[in-house]
Amino acid sequence: MAGAVLAGAEGVLLDISGVLYDSGGDGGGVPIPGSREAVRKIKASGLKLQFCTNETQATRDKFVKKLQHLGFDIAVNEVTAPAPAVCRILKERKLRPHLLVHDDLIPEFADIDKTNPNCVVIGDAADNFSYKNLNDAFQILISLENPVLLSLGRGRYYKETDGLKLDVGAYMKALEYACDIQAEVVGKPAKMFFRSALTEMGIEPHQAIMIGDDIVNDVGGAQQCGMRAVQVRTGKYRPCDEQHPEVKADLYVNNLAEAVDIILKYLHK
Amino acid sequence: MAGAVLAGAEGVLLDISGVLYDSGGDGGGVPIPGSREAVRKIKASGLKLQFCTNETQATRDKFVKKLQHLGFDIAVNEVTAPAPAVCRILKERKLRPHLLVHDDLIPEFADIDKTNPNCVVIGDAADNFSYKNLNDAFQILISLENPVLLSLGRGRYYKETDGLKLDVGAYMKALEYACDIQAEVVGKPAKMFFRSALTEMGIEPHQAIMIGDDIVNDVGGAQQCGMRAVQVRTGKYRPCDEQHPEVKADLYVNNLAEAVDIILKYLHK
Repeated sequence: MAGAVLAGAEGVLLDISGVLYDSGGDGGGVPIPGSREAVRKIKASGLKLQFCTNETQATRDKFVKKLQHLGFDIAVNEVTAPAPAVCRILKERKLRPHLLVHDDLIPEFADIDKTNPNCVVIGDAADNFSYKNLNDAFQILISLENPVLLSLGRGRYYKETDGLKLDVGAYMKALEYACDIQAEVVGKPAKMFFRSALTEMGIEPHQAIMIGDDIVNDVGGAQQCGMRAVQVRTGKYRPCDEQHPEVKADLYVNNLAEAVDIILKYLHK
Repeated sequence: MAGAVLAGAEGVLLDISGVLYDSGGDGGGVPIPGSREAVRKIKASGLKLQFCTNETQATRDKFVKKLQHLGFDIAVNEVTAPAPAVCRILKERKLRPHLLVHDDLIPEFADIDKTNPNCVVIGDAADNFSYKNLNDAFQILISLENPVLLSLGRGRYYKETDGLKLDVGAYMKALEYACDIQAEVVGKPAKMFFRSALTEMGIEPHQAIMIGDDIVNDVGGAQQCGMRAVQVRTGKYRPCDEQHPEVKADLYVNNLAEAVDIILKYLHK
């Protein structure tokens, strides 16, 4: 059986958008059928669980509240997200950011010195990606002797209820090209980000299974880190992902519910 | 003398923005000192002259009127610009564009079929580069079986009177990354674009000298085409351009006036 590749897991890392729910619309999103029950099954099984997201359109607190409201059993300390991770980096390296992020993410940077910026942090700013705002970030970077661009993820696009939307990676590439620099990615697929999620769970990469809808950033990133990885056929999944020239998932499944059933079936085999 | 590298020219190609004038502000721009006289000197000398621009913020007619108003001796048929070139390509290849361009460029596409688009054309759209507009272009491209992205130039940035501004190249890169495609560039540094300017002049590449402020798109592009090329220290010029890892101009001069004086001095040597 193909599912045997998932045997003997100690813990599961779950991407959120496109795996648990599709974001967008008035209610903030729509749960993917079976995903709420799948999360409960993982918790009941005794498997370790960490949510590993590149979501940067809201603070982690607000994001978790939305998911709880949608019926998910999830808590703030179970979520590994880019904004808290980048704040640690900013403090360690004494960087003062100019922020090009979603308005609702700004409270995460409340105790960060933002005067006289010496770097730029970009997240999924959505409508804040105006020409003026991208140009302001560009002008700061091009004026720095050692320009530092920290990107909260590098996704190409994500799926909302009304269609595909450009993600932060497209704008990261625009600034990289304009300034002839390389961004540092904080979030998936960066190894350090996956490792911090594993540290929270207290397990090793070979004991963990990542489940995501992004063939490069979820599946490829987790595999680079030594984990097994499953792609779900929900969210931004497209059939051509299964012929990706560089990344092959350990397993492709229809949705999270199917992935969890297989993991539990092979739990002690 | 270093200037001898420019000896024996038959014709001159001039970039416009950053060479003749700096754009922006209420009057539409400010002439660079000595540039109006330099254009007159070229014309009086009997040298062939063609203006070769990536300008796409206005129709060629309107752009030329603005330059005439600023005191330049210039006519529409002396200007090689991307919009007329891309219209020829659209017709030849039966492409129906979705346009992501400056409002003032739209009249150039008056007789082009834009229904049911099967490609995207992007130019220097400036404030039209909103998240919504870039996302609309992205959604069209990602839905096409054979996505075609035509980019009017690929500049990283240009200089206006109030500072550096992001150019179309940054947004071209964003769409290339989001859709995993390669844009086709219409404009400098594409060889076909330089060749069409030379055809207008009726001269061969080795007889021509390109003068521009962009080390990659003006200087590098013209040299790839077999021309000699001069970089002026005006417009978007930055001192680090003179240590560019891949492109070395045949000559660096302070401004257009100096370039023209040297070319005329070595005209028959």
